[in-house]
Amino acid sequence: MENTRTEISSLGEFGLIDHLTRNFEIQNASTVLSVGDDAAVIDHFGKQTVVTTDLLVEGIHFDLMYTPLKHLGYKSVIVNLSDVYAMNATPTQITISIAFSNRFSVEALDEFYEGVYAACEKYGVDLVGGDTSSSQKGFIISVTAIGEVAPDTFVKRSTAQKGDLICVSGDLGGAFLGLTLMEREKKIFLENPQIQPDLEGEDYIVGRLLKPEARKDIIEFFAENNITPTSMMDVSDGLSSDVLHLCKQSHLGCRVYEEKIPVHEAARKAAFKFGLDPTICALNGGEDYELLFTLKQEDYEKITLNEEISVIGYMSEIEEGSKLLTKGGNTFDITAQGWNAFKQ
Amino acid sequence: MENTRTEISSLGEFGLIDHLTRNFEIQNASTVLSVGDDAAVIDHFGKQTVVTTDLLVEGIHFDLMYTPLKHLGYKSVIVNLSDVYAMNATPTQITISIAFSNRFSVEALDEFYEGVYAACEKYGVDLVGGDTSSSQKGFIISVTAIGEVAPDTFVKRSTAQKGDLICVSGDLGGAFLGLTLMEREKKIFLENPQIQPDLEGEDYIVGRLLKPEARKDIIEFFAENNITPTSMMDVSDGLSSDVLHLCKQSHLGCRVYEEKIPVHEAARKAAFKFGLDPTICALNGGEDYELLFTLKQEDYEKITLNEEISVIGYMSEIEEGSKLLTKGGNTFDITAQGWNAFKQ
Repeated sequence: MENTRTEISSLGEFGLIDHLTRNFEIQNASTVLSVGDDAAVIDHFGKQTVVTTDLLVEGIHFDLMYTPLKHLGYKSVIVNLSDVYAMNATPTQITISIAFSNRFSVEALDEFYEGVYAACEKYGVDLVGGDTSSSQKGFIISVTAIGEVAPDTFVKRSTAQKGDLICVSGDLGGAFLGLTLMEREKKIFLENPQIQPDLEGEDYIVGRLLKPEARKDIIEFFAENNITPTSMMDVSDGLSSDVLHLCKQSHLGCRVYEEKIPVHEAARKAAFKFGLDPTICALNGGEDYELLFTLKQEDYEKITLNEEISVIGYMSEIEEGSKLLTKGGNTFDITAQGWNAFKQ
Repeated sequence: MENTRTEISSLGEFGLIDHLTRNFEIQNASTVLSVGDDAAVIDHFGKQTVVTTDLLVEGIHFDLMYTPLKHLGYKSVIVNLSDVYAMNATPTQITISIAFSNRFSVEALDEFYEGVYAACEKYGVDLVGGDTSSSQKGFIISVTAIGEVAPDTFVKRSTAQKGDLICVSGDLGGAFLGLTLMEREKKIFLENPQIQPDLEGEDYIVGRLLKPEARKDIIEFFAENNITPTSMMDVSDGLSSDVLHLCKQSHLGCRVYEEKIPVHEAARKAAFKFGLDPTICALNGGEDYELLFTLKQEDYEKITLNEEISVIGYMSEIEEGSKLLTKGGNTFDITAQGWNAFKQ
């Protein structure tokens, strides 16, 4: 793919930062001062500032064997924007720091930044700072996202009430199935490099893994329809683990109905192909970057307008525990390693 | 030193975050929501928000063979606070993400966080978020600092004017000499583990390396005396490199007088012991985290009140270049690898 290879040492650290940030234009009036100084300056007068950060390490959070650098840049931004939306806030700025070993060329970093910029442009976010340095091994990415929210309209995890509806955007389990597919193809390739990867018809789950989106549309829908969730977070660790966070932090229990958990048809097919239970993929998969939130029951009518939102259960007393009601009529405790209990 | 070793796996990721953040109390009214949600919320109404970030990688930015984890935690915070002060702003919040291999125990991370908390307490900063994860190799630290500044009173690098005085806080070269000492002792130890490190009388330079401070006092002095620097940055890469940043971004040249460059007596002695020129250590050493700034000439009287500030030269036309005038009466071009030119 690469025809030329420019060594990073030919640019130097400051030359590299200039090179990587040369085409970036400011999109937010609140960005007073951007890349090129000790710090950026942001003006959120009359609004509250939201901040979140994530560290992504090669070999732990991503595998460059099947992750194109452009997609990795895009996803690194998305996972942080998703956390800002999960506060019912709007992301406005990011900083990005990377460290990389000398196996990476300037062209490789350009590809990574192409993805970063594509995400920034799509979500209207300004890149305002960062840092580049060496690592002894692998690629390390740290992204911090800053956002804004009208005073005291942010939504926490700890404020769900008994009887609130539990809702989720989009569908779940796709990213995990994409990962399962890529890991399988990687294994086949390592055993026999002549065999080309077979991703035929698996665009959906591969896209869910490699190019996730953040649910800006859901936050906009809330604003347009005067909906304020009673609690919210994004689904990054899997529905089981994340719904337990809402329960724990709100001191409540829950009832979740298996049949209501949204799974895409393509994910369902892939699950059967791999001999997996689609529900278990949705419960434990993670990395879907959908929004998990609770609503007062009287808001039910409003959300039926939005096909991207599923009601999957309700919050109960803490004494009633956190339960999954299966299609077959059984009740299981939801645990962070839910499939263990579920499997028996 | 450690009597017990608790495996991180015994706590789990969320248990670990709870454990590490359990004793932390909020110090800033602007901290609306802290650790424990998708993002933190900050209220800087009527002020502008400053944001900066740094990524520190074991083996590149620090060596755990001679860096106690507590000091590392402290320094990781300080280097970011220093960037906020360099904007003439006040740091208010930080986020910290770490990734580490399984050679680290819970006790080791506790030591690291002790240092983080000590810095937060000393500088009045709240830890509001972060992330812990695994790495395949080594310890990786990403810190983002947030600060506040009265509208449009932040100070950039690009706004120095011709004739402005060039000033620096504290003294320079100490951290580099501390590093030289530690690297020498490490080499001796690796060759002969029976020999104990000889740090006798070297507290000053070792402290400059392992436990730097950020110049909060200088920013407070500016505010109390109605001084606004015309440009400012912190000295992290060495005086040569950093004064060239001010020149380049302000489209000016400079004259720096060797005899005015502040070097601590202990650093001077150490330099002679190692056969190094103290001026070269100050010019190229880096990591001193002092403030480098320019002032209008009419502010000269005001700063003579502060013994921690040295005037080392002035800004000139760009055509006159960036020059160092030596004690011997010679003139050299300042370059980012200044000692090369200087050495001949």
